[in-house]
Amino acid sequence: MHIHAFAARGPGAALHPFDYELQELGPYEIDIEVSHCGVCHSDIHLIDNDWNISHYPLVPGHEIVGAVKATGVKVEQLRVGQRVGVGWQSGSCLRCEWCLNGYENLCRNKVLTCVRRHGGFADFVRTDSRFTFTIPNSLDSASAAPLLCAGLTVYAPLRRFGLRPNHRVGIAGIGGLGHIALQFAHAMGCEVTAFSTNPEKEEDSFAFGADHFVNSHDEKQMQETKRTLDFILSTAAAPLRWSCYMEALRPNGHLTIVSRLSSQGKADSVAVPAPVLVGGQKSISGSLTGGRDVMREMLAFAASHHIDARSEVFPQTNINGAVQRVRNNEAHYRVVLET
Amino acid sequence: MHIHAFAARGPGAALHPFDYELQELGPYEIDIEVSHCGVCHSDIHLIDNDWNISHYPLVPGHEIVGAVKATGVKVEQLRVGQRVGVGWQSGSCLRCEWCLNGYENLCRNKVLTCVRRHGGFADFVRTDSRFTFTIPNSLDSASAAPLLCAGLTVYAPLRRFGLRPNHRVGIAGIGGLGHIALQFAHAMGCEVTAFSTNPEKEEDSFAFGADHFVNSHDEKQMQETKRTLDFILSTAAAPLRWSCYMEALRPNGHLTIVSRLSSQGKADSVAVPAPVLVGGQKSISGSLTGGRDVMREMLAFAASHHIDARSEVFPQTNINGAVQRVRNNEAHYRVVLET
Repeated sequence: MHIHAFAARGPGAALHPFDYELQELGPYEIDIEVSHCGVCHSDIHLIDNDWNISHYPLVPGHEIVGAVKATGVKVEQLRVGQRVGVGWQSGSCLRCEWCLNGYENLCRNKVLTCVRRHGGFADFVRTDSRFTFTIPNSLDSASAAPLLCAGLTVYAPLRRFGLRPNHRVGIAGIGGLGHIALQFAHAMGCEVTAFSTNPEKEEDSFAFGADHFVNSHDEKQMQETKRTLDFILSTAAAPLRWSCYMEALRPNGHLTIVSRLSSQGKADSVAVPAPVLVGGQKSISGSLTGGRDVMREMLAFAASHHIDARSEVFPQTNINGAVQRVRNNEAHYRVVLET
Repeated sequence: MHIHAFAARGPGAALHPFDYELQELGPYEIDIEVSHCGVCHSDIHLIDNDWNISHYPLVPGHEIVGAVKATGVKVEQLRVGQRVGVGWQSGSCLRCEWCLNGYENLCRNKVLTCVRRHGGFADFVRTDSRFTFTIPNSLDSASAAPLLCAGLTVYAPLRRFGLRPNHRVGIAGIGGLGHIALQFAHAMGCEVTAFSTNPEKEEDSFAFGADHFVNSHDEKQMQETKRTLDFILSTAAAPLRWSCYMEALRPNGHLTIVSRLSSQGKADSVAVPAPVLVGGQKSISGSLTGGRDVMREMLAFAASHHIDARSEVFPQTNINGAVQRVRNNEAHYRVVLET
C-alpha cells in the first residue's frame, strides 16, 4: 500500500510530502483513511525533537479520525467504513501489570503513534486496531479529533482523582487543553474556576462552563482563591507560581500537572514549601494521557454532554500554516487538518 | 484541682516545676493521672517556638498514657481507673466537614494538647474525653505512649494511600517515626525498604521488619532502587534528594512527607522535576497526624501485630535529661517519661 504523508526531515524542519510503502496488513492491524487530524503541541515538540525521542523522516499527527479502510484477519470489533479515532498511543504489550490494570499509558513497551512509526498527517494510517476507538455518532469529526489526545489528557486526571459533583475545581491555563477541561469539569457538576494570565480568556471561559475567572497575574484575585479549591488541573506549559496554587487548595486538596514544562531541553521543577504540603495534607501529581478504558469513557462522556474541542480547521494542503499557528500559540483553541 | 507540671518559661528554656489550678470539670472532660508521657521532637519545636504557635509558660507532652481519675457528667464511654491515651490533638469543632469525615486533624478549630493549654509533663492532665483513646491491654504503657503521636503520624498516610500487601514500600529516615513505620508496613504484608544516612541503622531496620536496607549516601545503592517502590514515606526532618526518591518510585508511585522540614524559622521546599512527575504519573503529598478513627484503628492494629515503639524510659525527675536526649537526636528510638 502506498501512503502519501507529510514529514519533517530533521529537527524543526518544515513538513514536505513524503510517500512510503506498507506491506501486508498484520492480523490486528487496520488501515484508516484519514479525514481529520489534530495538530497538537506535542507534534511541535516531536518535530523539534524536544524530548529526544524523534526519528526522521517524522510524520506527525496523533489525533486521527477517519474511516476503516481494511482490517486484519483477527480484527473482529471493527467493520470497513466505520468511523474511528487514534490518539497519542497506538500500542502496548497488553501483558504487563499496567496494561492489565487499565494503565496502558504506563506500559514500558508502549508504542507512540508518531515515534518510530508514521502518524496521521497523511491520507492513510495503519495502526493496531486494539488502540483505535469508535467515535460516537453525535460527535463531529473536526471537533472530536482533539479529544483523542487533549481530551484524554485532561479527562484522565479528573477521573483518577475521583471528582465528585460538589468539588470545587480549578483549571489553570485556558488553551487547547484547558478549554476542554473546563467543559468536562462543568459537566461533572463541579464548581469551576478558570485561571489564565490572559484576561481576554474570561468570556470564553464562561462559555466553556467556568463559574469563576481568575486573572492569575492579579495578586488580589489570586489571594482571594486561597483555600477555595479541592482540585486544580494545570494544563499550562510554563511553570506556575506553585505556592499560590497550593495555597488555593483546601485541605486534602490535589494539584495535577499534565505538562513536562520542558523548554530548550531543560525541564522545570515543581517546588512546594513543605509546610503547605503537610499542614493541609495537600498533594501534587503528574498525569500522562490515559488508558484505553478511560479513552472510551471520555468519548462517551463527551458525546452525552455535548463536549467538543473548539477547532480551527485547515485544509491538509496548508499543513505548514496549521503547524505554524500551533507553534505560535495562536490557535483558538485547537487546530485540525481536514483531508 | 492542683496540678504539678513542668514548664518552659520562654523559647528554648529548660523545664522547671510549674503548678497550676483547675476549676470544675467540664461535662465532656476527664482528668488523667499521667503514668507515662513520650518526649517527641515536636515538644522541642514547641519549647523553642519554632512554629510561632507557642505560649509560655508551656507544659509540653502530647504522648500521654495514664489512668482516668475523674469524668465529667456527659462522659459515658470511660470509667475511672481505665487506661487511656492522648495525642497531639485534644479537641476539634466536631461539626465541620473535616470532623464529619474523620479528618479532625484538618479542622480549623482543632485544639492541640500543648498549645494554649497544658500538656502531659505533669502528674495530671485534664482533657476532652472525646479525644482520648483506650489503650489495648496487650500494649505496654511505655511502648504505647509514642504510638499516640509518632505511631499515628506514620500509620495515617500508610492507610490513606491504600497500601496493599503486594506493595513495595520505602521508609526514609529510621528514627523515632521511621522505626514504627517499618513495623507497620511489614505487618501490612508489604515488602519494605529502609533508607537511612546512617549505616549503623541496618541491623535494627531488619529487626523492625525491613526486607532491604539502603544507605542513602551510597550512590550505587540509591541507583539500584530506581523504579522499585510503590510508596515512600519520608519521616526525615531534613530535605531529601527528592529526585532520587521520586526515581525510586514505580509508575503511579507516591511519596509522602510528614515533616515540615523547617529549621531556624525557614521552611524548605519539596522540588521535583516535572517530567518525573508526569512521565510516571507520580505524586507527592504531605500528611499531618490523623483523625480519631485512624487513631483507634492504629492502636488496634499495633496491638494485634505486637507493634510498639522502642523507648528509653526516663524518670520524670530527669525531665531535662530526657528533653536533651531528644533535642540531640540521640534517642534509640523514642524517649518516654515515667511518673
